[in-house]
Amino acid sequence: MSLKKVAVIMGSDSDWPVVKGCCAQLKAYGIPFEARVMSAHRTPAEAAAFAKSAADEGFGVLIAAAGMAAHLAGALAANTTLPVIGIPVKGGAMDGLDALLATVQMPTGIPVATVAINGAKNAAVLAAQMLALSDDALAARLRAERADMAKTIAKKNEALQAEAAAL
Amino acid sequence: MSLKKVAVIMGSDSDWPVVKGCCAQLKAYGIPFEARVMSAHRTPAEAAAFAKSAADEGFGVLIAAAGMAAHLAGALAANTTLPVIGIPVKGGAMDGLDALLATVQMPTGIPVATVAINGAKNAAVLAAQMLALSDDALAARLRAERADMAKTIAKKNEALQAEAAAL
Amino acid sequence: MSLKKVAVIMGSDSDWPVVKGCCAQLKAYGIPFEARVMSAHRTPAEAAAFAKSAADEGFGVLIAAAGMAAHLAGALAANTTLPVIGIPVKGGAMDGLDALLATVQMPTGIPVATVAINGAKNAAVLAAQMLALSDDALAARLRAERADMAKTIAKKNEALQAEAAAL
Amino acid sequence: MSLKKVAVIMGSDSDWPVVKGCCAQLKAYGIPFEARVMSAHRTPAEAAAFAKSAADEGFGVLIAAAGMAAHLAGALAANTTLPVIGIPVKGGAMDGLDALLATVQMPTGIPVATVAINGAKNAAVLAAQMLALSDDALAARLRAERADMAKTIAKKNEALQAEAAAL
Amino acid sequence: MSLKKVAVIMGSDSDWPVVKGCCAQLKAYGIPFEARVMSAHRTPAEAAAFAKSAADEGFGVLIAAAGMAAHLAGALAANTTLPVIGIPVKGGAMDGLDALLATVQMPTGIPVATVAINGAKNAAVLAAQMLALSDDALAARLRAERADMAKTIAKKNEALQAEAAAL
Amino acid sequence: MSLKKVAVIMGSDSDWPVVKGCCAQLKAYGIPFEARVMSAHRTPAEAAAFAKSAADEGFGVLIAAAGMAAHLAGALAANTTLPVIGIPVKGGAMDGLDALLATVQMPTGIPVATVAINGAKNAAVLAAQMLALSDDALAARLRAERADMAKTIAKKNEALQAEAAAL
Amino acid sequence: MSLKKVAVIMGSDSDWPVVKGCCAQLKAYGIPFEARVMSAHRTPAEAAAFAKSAADEGFGVLIAAAGMAAHLAGALAANTTLPVIGIPVKGGAMDGLDALLATVQMPTGIPVATVAINGAKNAAVLAAQMLALSDDALAARLRAERADMAKTIAKKNEALQAEAAAL
Amino acid sequence: MSLKKVAVIMGSDSDWPVVKGCCAQLKAYGIPFEARVMSAHRTPAEAAAFAKSAADEGFGVLIAAAGMAAHLAGALAANTTLPVIGIPVKGGAMDGLDALLATVQMPTGIPVATVAINGAKNAAVLAAQMLALSDDALAARLRAERADMAKTIAKKNEALQAEAAAL
Repeated sequence: MSLKKVAVIMGSDSDWPVVKGCCAQLKAYGIPFEARVMSAHRTPAEAAAFAKSAADEGFGVLIAAAGMAAHLAGALAANTTLPVIGIPVKGGAMDGLDALLATVQMPTGIPVATVAINGAKNAAVLAAQMLALSDDALAARLRAERADMAKTIAKKNEALQAEAAAL
Repeated sequence: MSLKKVAVIMGSDSDWPVVKGCCAQLKAYGIPFEARVMSAHRTPAEAAAFAKSAADEGFGVLIAAAGMAAHLAGALAANTTLPVIGIPVKGGAMDGLDALLATVQMPTGIPVATVAINGAKNAAVLAAQMLALSDDALAARLRAERADMAKTIAKKNEALQAEAAAL
Repeated sequence: MSLKKVAVIMGSDSDWPVVKGCCAQLKAYGIPFEARVMSAHRTPAEAAAFAKSAADEGFGVLIAAAGMAAHLAGALAANTTLPVIGIPVKGGAMDGLDALLATVQMPTGIPVATVAINGAKNAAVLAAQMLALSDDALAARLRAERADMAKTIAKKNEALQAEAAAL
Repeated sequence: MSLKKVAVIMGSDSDWPVVKGCCAQLKAYGIPFEARVMSAHRTPAEAAAFAKSAADEGFGVLIAAAGMAAHLAGALAANTTLPVIGIPVKGGAMDGLDALLATVQMPTGIPVATVAINGAKNAAVLAAQMLALSDDALAARLRAERADMAKTIAKKNEALQAEAAAL
Repeated sequence: MSLKKVAVIMGSDSDWPVVKGCCAQLKAYGIPFEARVMSAHRTPAEAAAFAKSAADEGFGVLIAAAGMAAHLAGALAANTTLPVIGIPVKGGAMDGLDALLATVQMPTGIPVATVAINGAKNAAVLAAQMLALSDDALAARLRAERADMAKTIAKKNEALQAEAAAL
Repeated sequence: MSLKKVAVIMGSDSDWPVVKGCCAQLKAYGIPFEARVMSAHRTPAEAAAFAKSAADEGFGVLIAAAGMAAHLAGALAANTTLPVIGIPVKGGAMDGLDALLATVQMPTGIPVATVAINGAKNAAVLAAQMLALSDDALAARLRAERADMAKTIAKKNEALQAEAAAL
Repeated sequence: MSLKKVAVIMGSDSDWPVVKGCCAQLKAYGIPFEARVMSAHRTPAEAAAFAKSAADEGFGVLIAAAGMAAHLAGALAANTTLPVIGIPVKGGAMDGLDALLATVQMPTGIPVATVAINGAKNAAVLAAQMLALSDDALAARLRAERADMAKTIAKKNEALQAEAAAL
Repeated sequence: MSLKKVAVIMGSDSDWPVVKGCCAQLKAYGIPFEARVMSAHRTPAEAAAFAKSAADEGFGVLIAAAGMAAHLAGALAANTTLPVIGIPVKGGAMDGLDALLATVQMPTGIPVATVAINGAKNAAVLAAQMLALSDDALAARLRAERADMAKTIAKKNEALQAEAAAL
């Protein structure tokens, strides 16, 4: 079974430095993805149309990154029943709290799976976890990555212990 | 010249107790209005279509009330160049701060004229001020109301002074 | 293909009034689920063990609800690569903002799909969206529900228009 | 019918780098405007007098930018029934949240149409939307600008897609 | 030397339940005071005129209580060089934080001596401390009150110790 | 070796309903304690004197509970090198966030061991953990309590599973 | 009648860059002042002793500047009935909000006259306003300064108008 | 009696610049310590195992530093009855408020002794205070350090007074 595609939508190309990490991670997983600049406010019709046809176009998960009054994830979620992941982008009032609240506080019936402020890589991981529900190879890849992560921490731990002992 | 209509849109009929004050004030001003329940998330197509045709339907100002991740005002503003007034409705996290930030922190090019949390009556006053720019009778009405307001305060002042003196 | 199970874990049985809505929604979807009280702080070993074996036990998605320093979702996510959905429960300082931040601000590599404060029903919808990626019947069910939602709003709209016109 | 003027008032000349964008946008629209430094606290009489006579002087909309305990928009609104737009300026406690709350949380009867923190350009757009209610040429200009905006996003989208594909 | 008067101004008579405690404390101190309802937004001219003539009318200190976008203290301070004490009144967004920030974050040159949210009695104490700088009898009264306060705590301490011992 | 005493100080007897849980827990542990009402602001000399002599009087840990500008824990810590535990009491602006920040944000050299807002029982547990460092019986007691806690959760889990299954 | 002295106390010499503006302003007014580094937490006895004897030593007003859990102003206020002005210093959590809340949220009976975050110069102005209650020359000086302030704004206004016209 | 060891655990080696100050202070006190990188989310099993065996391995106090959804201190506390000190590390949303709330808002039964945001040195001081409960030499050392601290402030005070006098 081939993997469904992931769409990575950002509200502005100025979000790319943050969003890039999401795309790089999807690529590392071998998950097919497409990136787009679409705005809930400046190109609402395009965003709605994209979300409406996303399932038919072979997408399985939509990822949306936006800052300030971050409506993008919600605007996509309003037009699809595919899972939508929201990345609140730092930059507005209160270090991104505006984007976080505007992304996560969705009304009943239309959830957005929200990750941390600027948590672009985690959005890719979460999308992979969703797709891995029906793809054993990807699931195995995620488990292996988790094991590697622990090994990396273990190495950093050793280096740190040495540094601390030398204080 | 007859007044353009004001549309009063709310994201849920549970917002009506707050929004009612807005409609009552418009009625008191003699401004024609229509109230609607439309959701940026549950009926996005209807909301977009409404906003797109609003100018042609004779509307001059759109008022939108919503709580939590309050996207409604922004979703309307994205589909019209008429002025859109946003009423953040109290009820979500942090006493409505989520709705306030989600309403006011709009991106460049698509403003929402935001009033206070639950400030429904002020949304009506602001709409009237906009319409009064080309309607002298309404402008006079607003000036008269302001003068009455000062008189009311003056009366309350007298009553209060008596009460304080009697402490 | 039969649906994988959803685990609904709460940090305390005092969270049940909120979490109940999540279970009821899963039941309405016909998604098999199991509910548990497990605490990241009071029964950390049980919570870790549950998460570690969850995939093997036939679970596809874990949902975790907790308040205050809400670590439960993160503690589960640390022990599985299944998608974990977090419900921040209102009740601590700042109306649940503590639980929201403690749930959503996860480090790189270990995402938690966070929904709104007390957004229990949306956690169920989000879990269904994930499972529907490989279940066409469930996907159809979600699309139908969305269409019903729009009809409900349309009816409320009519009632509201009448009420507003009668002001 | 000639356009009414817009007044752009700032509490301090240190706000000019932010406010400049508002004036430039008004100029681009061909809307006559005058900029002023007036302080609700340091020149209260001048600010009140300006607002009181603004309608008679040919102004249609007042825009006020201020930071911290941002009273300027409210002080103007208290002395006119023209619509007043408030720009909360970043710089005080909590990244401009103080200015936002001090601008938007106005009492019943005296609204301030608040835009985003540092949202100077949007204040100009909002003022144009108000004036366009009775000026068809300006209304057409705003609609054209909106269409251009969508085209700009479309171009950025193409560039971004290429960049993402090359990852 | 006879004491100067204290003016206690509130933005709305709905603030009276909070402000009453301020007036009662002034009365207990034997400090002459006058209470007024005046609004920075609804009766700006009256508020400005009052502040301008306050020194000549025999006032020494002005106390202002207001909620939400609490401009009253600042509006008075803008029109007098007498010390102005601000009481942020609870009630708007974020439990009075809006009123606190709008009262305390004044620009250079125009301070407002801000007390706690709803700290009406402390406003009276602070006014008394200011007047006591040139009134030895009042200064003695304040020192005596402080000593009494310590005795009251000592008594409560004894009662509490008994209650705790009986647990 | 007999246990050192714990002092439980509260800034006002109105804090007793919260603080009571702390004393009850200490009593349940068999830890000798004394409760006091002492205020950093109303009886500063008594509070300082108490802290200065606390070690000589046989106290090992001081617990301080206070709300709003909660200085009590810090004022005690300034006068002793015994560990001081701070309980921020809910009640002021922002649901106790003021008390939390005023308690925890201590300068270098003078720490306060801060527990959750209204976390009175946890203050007792933390004090017990400190004293158990040199008391094996108390340490065993704490381990046993922790095991009981897990059993309680396990029972609640069973009851909840039944309730959820019956939905 | 000679002016009483003002004490300017800071919790750390790292606050001097902020506090300096306060001292410079007092000097400009010709008000005698003394500056001190004293800490509510590191030198509590010295701070308490200073406050206790301040009135006898010829001080009329105490100004205290501190950051984070800013207890200094409150610790001084607890030991004197002279008016105490608090300057919350930026630098801790949330851009100085911790210091603001810790300074302003004082309990009944012990007020601190709080100025803006980092509002050092305004603390001097407020102290001058208090002392001017019994010093006509200083009162005249303050009125003159206010008039100058308006003239400065007027000049800036002219410069700004030119700059805006040249856009 | 020899001192028990202190464990200093950080969630990531990127926390080392902050945590270093904690280790340096422990070393200055002559308290044996070990530093580790362990993550509640990336190496949950290691962290749990470490905490479970900490008492048997000769540790008396655990210190945990983490940012964002800072679960580390809580995850350790869940697996030991030794006192656990939490250092919220600045860096996530709202200048570390997320880490503070995630660290301090622990549920009943499982306290974390929380110090200031980035308060690494104070964590060491607090640990020393706990260990000094059964070590008279360390207690004397802490008292001496406190006295030195007062002397340092006194010297800074002298320097500052000179600088202020020279203004």
